Amino acid sequence: MTDFFDIADEGENVEREAYDREVETLRADLLDVQYSLKENGKFPVIVLVNGVDGAGKGETVNILNEWMDARHIHTKAFAPPTEEELERPRLYRYWMNLPPKGSIGLLFGSWYTDPIVDRVYRRTKRSDLDDAVDEITRLERLLVADGALLIKLWFHLSKKDQKKRLTELDEDERRTWRVTRADWKQFRRYDDFRRVSSYVLSRTSLDGATWTVVNGRDARHRYLTVGRLLLSAMKQRLERAQAEPARSAPAQLVRTTAAESPIDSLDFSKTISEEDYNDELERLRGRLNRLTRHKHFSKISVVAAFEGMDAAGKGSTIRRIISAVDARLYRVIPISAPTEEERAKPYLYRFYRQLPRHGHMTLYDRSWYGRVLVERVEGYCSEQDFMRAYDEINDFEAQLVKSRAVVVKFWLQVSKDEQLRRFEERSHTRFKRFKITPEDYRNREKWDAYQIAAADMIVRTSTSHAPWTLVPANDKKYSRIHAMRTLVERMEEALDAL
Amino acid sequence: MTDFFDIADEGENVEREAYDREVETLRADLLDVQYSLKENGKFPVIVLVNGVDGAGKGETVNILNEWMDARHIHTKAFAPPTEEELERPRLYRYWMNLPPKGSIGLLFGSWYTDPIVDRVYRRTKRSDLDDAVDEITRLERLLVADGALLIKLWFHLSKKDQKKRLTELDEDERRTWRVTRADWKQFRRYDDFRRVSSYVLSRTSLDGATWTVVNGRDARHRYLTVGRLLLSAMKQRLERAQAEPARSAPAQLVRTTAAESPIDSLDFSKTISEEDYNDELERLRGRLNRLTRHKHFSKISVVAAFEGMDAAGKGSTIRRIISAVDARLYRVIPISAPTEEERAKPYLYRFYRQLPRHGHMTLYDRSWYGRVLVERVEGYCSEQDFMRAYDEINDFEAQLVKSRAVVVKFWLQVSKDEQLRRFEERSHTRFKRFKITPEDYRNREKWDAYQIAAADMIVRTSTSHAPWTLVPANDKKYSRIHAMRTLVERMEEALDAL
Repeated sequence: MTDFFDIADEGENVEREAYDREVETLRADLLDVQYSLKENGKFPVIVLVNGVDGAGKGETVNILNEWMDARHIHTKAFAPPTEEELERPRLYRYWMNLPPKGSIGLLFGSWYTDPIVDRVYRRTKRSDLDDAVDEITRLERLLVADGALLIKLWFHLSKKDQKKRLTELDEDERRTWRVTRADWKQFRRYDDFRRVSSYVLSRTSLDGATWTVVNGRDARHRYLTVGRLLLSAMKQRLERAQAEPARSAPAQLVRTTAAESPIDSLDFSKTISEEDYNDELERLRGRLNRLTRHKHFSKISVVAAFEGMDAAGKGSTIRRIISAVDARLYRVIPISAPTEEERAKPYLYRFYRQLPRHGHMTLYDRSWYGRVLVERVEGYCSEQDFMRAYDEINDFEAQLVKSRAVVVKFWLQVSKDEQLRRFEERSHTRFKRFKITPEDYRNREKWDAYQIAAADMIVRTSTSHAPWTLVPANDKKYSRIHAMRTLVERMEEALDAL
Repeated sequence: MTDFFDIADEGENVEREAYDREVETLRADLLDVQYSLKENGKFPVIVLVNGVDGAGKGETVNILNEWMDARHIHTKAFAPPTEEELERPRLYRYWMNLPPKGSIGLLFGSWYTDPIVDRVYRRTKRSDLDDAVDEITRLERLLVADGALLIKLWFHLSKKDQKKRLTELDEDERRTWRVTRADWKQFRRYDDFRRVSSYVLSRTSLDGATWTVVNGRDARHRYLTVGRLLLSAMKQRLERAQAEPARSAPAQLVRTTAAESPIDSLDFSKTISEEDYNDELERLRGRLNRLTRHKHFSKISVVAAFEGMDAAGKGSTIRRIISAVDARLYRVIPISAPTEEERAKPYLYRFYRQLPRHGHMTLYDRSWYGRVLVERVEGYCSEQDFMRAYDEINDFEAQLVKSRAVVVKFWLQVSKDEQLRRFEERSHTRFKRFKITPEDYRNREKWDAYQIAAADMIVRTSTSHAPWTLVPANDKKYSRIHAMRTLVERMEEALDAL
């Protein structure tokens, strides 16, 4: 058998004296580079700690905490997911535990453990494993593209060494409690575990996210291997950070998709009479309310994103929707500038963070699409950043759908004249006094750029599981009914499909 | 029977026309005042929504979300606590859900529900209820002192009205599903529920946190009552905010306790030989490691706070401790300036946030005592703020102990000369290059003020459940052993007492 671990089967031994000598400099260097990382503050170091039980994962994590400044290391061991976590995408809990920029995260178990173990114990099919691997690949690509230094460690023990370890522990009276029947049971799966792991590792050795297999037999060898690797990887990454050019000014905005703008074909002539509006609104409110009390509503969640030019009616549409839903079941999340804590994580973090549990809905007033709208138009992110965001967003939404969320996305489109009319109306109504700012007028000057960005966005992120709903919004009543009906129908479909 | 609710038993009816007329202005005014709250941004509005089932709590919360800008309202309904929450103090989950300054939180159920319901169903003793009431009183005092506008609503229905409501629903074919057997079961407890609630309400009508009993029979009456109350309370609070004087410069620091400074009597002559140190350290590491693998360690948690002048050895002591513990079981939290999200909550929030689960320990490198040390000395908070902090901290720690946390607090004291020696040593060691900043020298100039603040702190917050351990730290080895032994002994005591 030849596999991913062959080369590591032998392992090495390190003498105490040589070890002590090397550790002295290694520690100082690691601490040094850790402080440089903190000073730089622009990227996190994410260390995945995986592998065979008994190969010294825990001890190594301890040594790293001891060698470096433990205050800036985030060690996280993943226990089985809680009920709340199970109601969100599988990767949700890893997102919630990403280390902030400038710090080191040691993720114990990480996103690899469950897919591998589930497959070894035949709780999942081969295709499930492949799906999980794809999901992981996309996550790691995102992290690396976002600047993270990703270090993936696999602690290995050959079958012979593992057996020897368990037998020795068993025979040592003082330590025999450390070996449980579960350990031996696990050992009987050694070959399966190795086979599945080898497959997963070979499929996930990506550019910028390769695996390092560490033979765990000799403790000193293990610590030095990991210490040296961490040091050189961090040094290299910091050097690269020095060389990174400052962000250049945003280029002239041009369409990046060839398709005709879907916005152009919107029919603004559609209206609805006051009477029909009132009737229809009542009917839809009733349907929506009953849906949230449907016996299976507790098995799905609803994620609704509202996008559109300023004054397109996002807020008032949301208000009509929530008036039909028990306030315990929804949250409205207004998206403006991210907080300091949010800025220290990849941009999708703040949206993962607010995902609803089953039986709940989250309405985002502006959303993750900010990345390809305002951030693109204003040049807050680079072309590379927003270009990869389309895929990242499609993946995010696919994860949502897989976690049984109904994903509904609205683009509310007003004409440029209508927007101006509303701005002026608003500035005269006491009710809405805080809604018009000089910034709104500034954004208006970039009307065409936003239209280009919106067109690209709609073309690139319309998927069958999370389609865009384009709403001609010059007639407020028509637009509210249109959005609300879409939401209701999508929820009905999802509940019917259960 | 005369009780807290007598006056509300009758209720009122409001005609539709009068209602519509009033709501038109009320909504505009509420929205106006909500935006002023947001602009002001200095305090949160916390609305507790409690009372009898069927009295319209949910509908009222919905109306408020509809009337105001739901994006700046945090509605939170409390489900039964999760396993993770049960391993923290009872109030933990309420702390985690406090609305940030400038926004409105509608807390459904709130901290009143469990104590009342538990008592009604005889799951707790009268003395438990009293304890819960005391705990709540202290929390509400803290919130109000911190600036929060606290509005406590109790939705009431007389027994007659409740019976009528249930009977009518039962007889209405289309709505009969809304009445369950649990509702009728609950109804049979009406008198008990009223008696316990009345007792709790009368004991918790505090200055600045009084109850408003809302008769829930008539929906329009209910909405207007709540709307008007919210409007006038928010207006008043905002006016007060206008009138609040800017914080004055910090006064000359003087002791606020009469007792002799416990720091003065520390014996700095204690030392330990290299050999004894190594032996003892190994022994203590072993004991500590075994304690974290004790079969009952999963029933307690450890919260350790390290305070002391700069360079007193907090970090190096922490490093010795964690070297004996599995990295999955501890977190080291360095306390520096709070983040933006943390600043929007009362100062204890960030410490609640990091509390360990059972079977885990959190080591705080500097802690909640910053309030009465650096914040007092630098004048970051007012005298009133730090004076009340002593009680708040004692209460926080009492809650921790009640949740089965071992609370260990260290004051590491170096002499002024020794501190200078260490500063100079540090600035010459590459290893520690980032540890000395000009700020350290500035803090040193305030040596006497810090000593005064520390003395007051130790006198005021030494409790039997969470005593201070004063460590003469001129001899690093002695001080590490002293701290570590204290930690180990306190953990042993706690495990023995289980």
